[in-house]
Amino acid sequence: MRTSGCLTLRQAADAAGGRVLGDGDVVFRRFAPVHDAGPNALALLADRRYARDLRDCRGCALLVSEELCDLEGGPADRVVVQDPHAALLVLVPLLYPEQEVDPGLHPAATVHDSASIPGSAAIGPNAVIAARVVLGEGVRVGANCVIERDASIGSGTVLFPNVTVYAGAVVGERVVVHAGTRIGVDGFGYVTEAGKHRKVPQVGGCVIEDDVEIGANCTIDRGSIGRTVIGTGSKLDNLVHIGHNVQIGARSILVAQVGVAGSTRTGEGVAMGGQAGLVGHLRIGAGARIGAQAGVIGDVAPGETVSGYPARDHRSYLKAMALLMRFPEVMRRVDRLERRVAERGDTR
Amino acid sequence: MRTSGCLTLRQAADAAGGRVLGDGDVVFRRFAPVHDAGPNALALLADRRYARDLRDCRGCALLVSEELCDLEGGPADRVVVQDPHAALLVLVPLLYPEQEVDPGLHPAATVHDSASIPGSAAIGPNAVIAARVVLGEGVRVGANCVIERDASIGSGTVLFPNVTVYAGAVVGERVVVHAGTRIGVDGFGYVTEAGKHRKVPQVGGCVIEDDVEIGANCTIDRGSIGRTVIGTGSKLDNLVHIGHNVQIGARSILVAQVGVAGSTRTGEGVAMGGQAGLVGHLRIGAGARIGAQAGVIGDVAPGETVSGYPARDHRSYLKAMALLMRFPEVMRRVDRLERRVAERGDTR
Amino acid sequence: MRTSGCLTLRQAADAAGGRVLGDGDVVFRRFAPVHDAGPNALALLADRRYARDLRDCRGCALLVSEELCDLEGGPADRVVVQDPHAALLVLVPLLYPEQEVDPGLHPAATVHDSASIPGSAAIGPNAVIAARVVLGEGVRVGANCVIERDASIGSGTVLFPNVTVYAGAVVGERVVVHAGTRIGVDGFGYVTEAGKHRKVPQVGGCVIEDDVEIGANCTIDRGSIGRTVIGTGSKLDNLVHIGHNVQIGARSILVAQVGVAGSTRTGEGVAMGGQAGLVGHLRIGAGARIGAQAGVIGDVAPGETVSGYPARDHRSYLKAMALLMRFPEVMRRVDRLERRVAERGDTR
Repeated sequence: MRTSGCLTLRQAADAAGGRVLGDGDVVFRRFAPVHDAGPNALALLADRRYARDLRDCRGCALLVSEELCDLEGGPADRVVVQDPHAALLVLVPLLYPEQEVDPGLHPAATVHDSASIPGSAAIGPNAVIAARVVLGEGVRVGANCVIERDASIGSGTVLFPNVTVYAGAVVGERVVVHAGTRIGVDGFGYVTEAGKHRKVPQVGGCVIEDDVEIGANCTIDRGSIGRTVIGTGSKLDNLVHIGHNVQIGARSILVAQVGVAGSTRTGEGVAMGGQAGLVGHLRIGAGARIGAQAGVIGDVAPGETVSGYPARDHRSYLKAMALLMRFPEVMRRVDRLERRVAERGDTR
Repeated sequence: MRTSGCLTLRQAADAAGGRVLGDGDVVFRRFAPVHDAGPNALALLADRRYARDLRDCRGCALLVSEELCDLEGGPADRVVVQDPHAALLVLVPLLYPEQEVDPGLHPAATVHDSASIPGSAAIGPNAVIAARVVLGEGVRVGANCVIERDASIGSGTVLFPNVTVYAGAVVGERVVVHAGTRIGVDGFGYVTEAGKHRKVPQVGGCVIEDDVEIGANCTIDRGSIGRTVIGTGSKLDNLVHIGHNVQIGARSILVAQVGVAGSTRTGEGVAMGGQAGLVGHLRIGAGARIGAQAGVIGDVAPGETVSGYPARDHRSYLKAMALLMRFPEVMRRVDRLERRVAERGDTR
Repeated sequence: MRTSGCLTLRQAADAAGGRVLGDGDVVFRRFAPVHDAGPNALALLADRRYARDLRDCRGCALLVSEELCDLEGGPADRVVVQDPHAALLVLVPLLYPEQEVDPGLHPAATVHDSASIPGSAAIGPNAVIAARVVLGEGVRVGANCVIERDASIGSGTVLFPNVTVYAGAVVGERVVVHAGTRIGVDGFGYVTEAGKHRKVPQVGGCVIEDDVEIGANCTIDRGSIGRTVIGTGSKLDNLVHIGHNVQIGARSILVAQVGVAGSTRTGEGVAMGGQAGLVGHLRIGAGARIGAQAGVIGDVAPGETVSGYPARDHRSYLKAMALLMRFPEVMRRVDRLERRVAERGDTR
């Protein structure tokens, strides 16, 4: 990405509420991790695991937490803050100004007469916007997106290229949808009669609430007859699948390749690790944590942490799997016990 | 989704072959699950797990199975049927008429002169149809789809937007392909020589038989030299991966995020749970059931049910995982036995 | 796929450095696996598992390894080679000539004035190429692809249709990207304050080195501040997810649906089986092998083979899971030991 201009360590420390160790006049033009920093970069060190990379760091200065600020090696000139990642929230926009997008309708876009498009919206080339679609102020629709009839997109929402929004889906305000994601897809519902699968028409809603971000190539099904809902402020990583009638609580985190099957409802602030899977019709309590690759086949209580398949308490699972490796030893001990007890039986 | 008009409970009961409890003149305009029903909705109760939602149900009436029809709470006016989901097959189309699509070629579509497109087909904006492609009667090609040279699509098939059909793929009749799915992709075949991976040209076929439905963002590889085949009437959920030369038997069910590696062949009527994975070169018997997240590394007999990694008999696996949690207790008991046996050895 | 012409067994044997058993004048027009070969096909038998299909093989001849060349049944006329898959590298191009693509800019493409497009490039219909994009010689951009500002694509690289390249991504030479893949997506980085997730701006790079092949519907994130790198000659199957700042070593193999979380770095020549997942911030040594569905939560040493969740030595894991099935028996034996020891305690 292109940067604009540069900053001194002192400017950075002032902006981020930190302090300078060493020379505050050192200038940097970009940010980088410690192991991948060039001479113009402020190198980020936020995690002790990367201290081993310090010695070979070629950055001109270090952005480091109070906890790690005295580590030896690497750049001696440092910006010290409480939380380097939080500092980036402030610092990155100073060097990487938000890309401006000109509003307006690209001539290669195809927009139905009955669609409602404010002048502040930016519609990219080959975008297709069908009948009765309603867009809010400042909406950005990327190139080659398709928004089917009766869908609505709230103000300030950004659709990256090649996204599909199915008919009637409702996307809130300030939502970000990355490339290739499909919203409001028919759910997977069939009635099987004599071995043949007859489709139950999928006519429910799909609601993406405000401030949600959805990664690339995700699939969010519409409800069968009810609604699928992604709650306010939730964040979905890439390749996540959400089945029909699922309700994801507000401010949840779903890491890449998670799958949630139909009609499962989760509370607020749930976290799901990568590749975790939840079967259908579950209730997951607020604040629950589902480990990476966990296979959840039963309800999870609020605040609980689970992992494994079938998922259970995370620590018990890890402990059990560790013990499993001692099983051969236990079998040998049982063999020996049986022999000794048998010998005594014989000799008595 | 937009509905048209309304129904009385009596009309619904007559159409679905059920009976009315209470007032048959009650009118509804949509369907909804019990927990998410507004005052115009016929609320669906098909599963005892949702009985707890009855008390707070705001729907005007209930569509309920014989088994659950006497449950207390919720709407007193009810349509009682044997199988509420099967009833929806009949009732939903009465309120949600099939969307009509005007046939014809959108002016923003790009169609090669040598392609064969009947007048009854509907080709959306920015669809691209390459040389020698053949479409059947009534085919619908969504906006921004790409159909590469020599592919063919059977009558009545629907491609949702942003789909890619690779060169030479053969899609049958009445197939539904959801947004973003890729059909006939090059398989993953390399010969490794001195650490370098040389690609084996992937020139085989990809056949989607009649009445198949494929979810969004799936990937179906072409054969390397043979054919990949998805059998008649099979249903694939979103984000499913099918490797090269795989043959999926007729009328199978593959839930979201399943992956089937190259050359595996499955019999008729197989069911695979979400995120299940099958390695390559397996034979899976007819009617086998692969559990969610199962990792199948060996053949599965007809009718068998497997789960876990490595996948084995489902009940044995669940029992073994349950017992695993008792392992710490067994270790304590073995410790105690060893002490007691040793003491007696000493005191004898 | 369409073939051109035909070959005799003798021609095939000469080209592949093999020998003929039987009639060298037999003519074939295509290749096929043993179980799916028509009368014009040279049937491939490379694996003893498929010997059972030989009896019913309808191919006109067999392409077979030295090891299996004497198996009975099936076509008696045979081309015998050391490695039939390696032979296909030579033979397939003789029957399936590479598809020629005419260079030039399709009139329905949208290209920014500041983009640099050589005359040898082929840009498909509805492709969108934004400001300051640079394409190398002979690049092919498929229909409905979107390449955002400041990205660059090296010579000889092929993008299949419906691909998105995000702003600033750098794709090397002779790279192949299959349909629907997203390169340079924003990474999944948030700072959570009082339960709200604030996005850390994702401004790092995304580098796909030379000779990489990426399957369909993959997602490759850009770095947060550093770079994501896919090393030279690596091959990614379909639906693979690569998180921000990940570095994949050269000549690695990632099978379908693998997910690698942020900042993990892998050495050269690593192999990951289908659906394997790696958490973030790991170091995976050169030549390591990650089994299908493995869940890796710690570093892996060079050359090590791991599987299971949490991933550990592959053989130990499989052995432990096999032993787990004997756990009920061990519990019975411990019960019996306790009874016998208790009886003797009583009778002494």
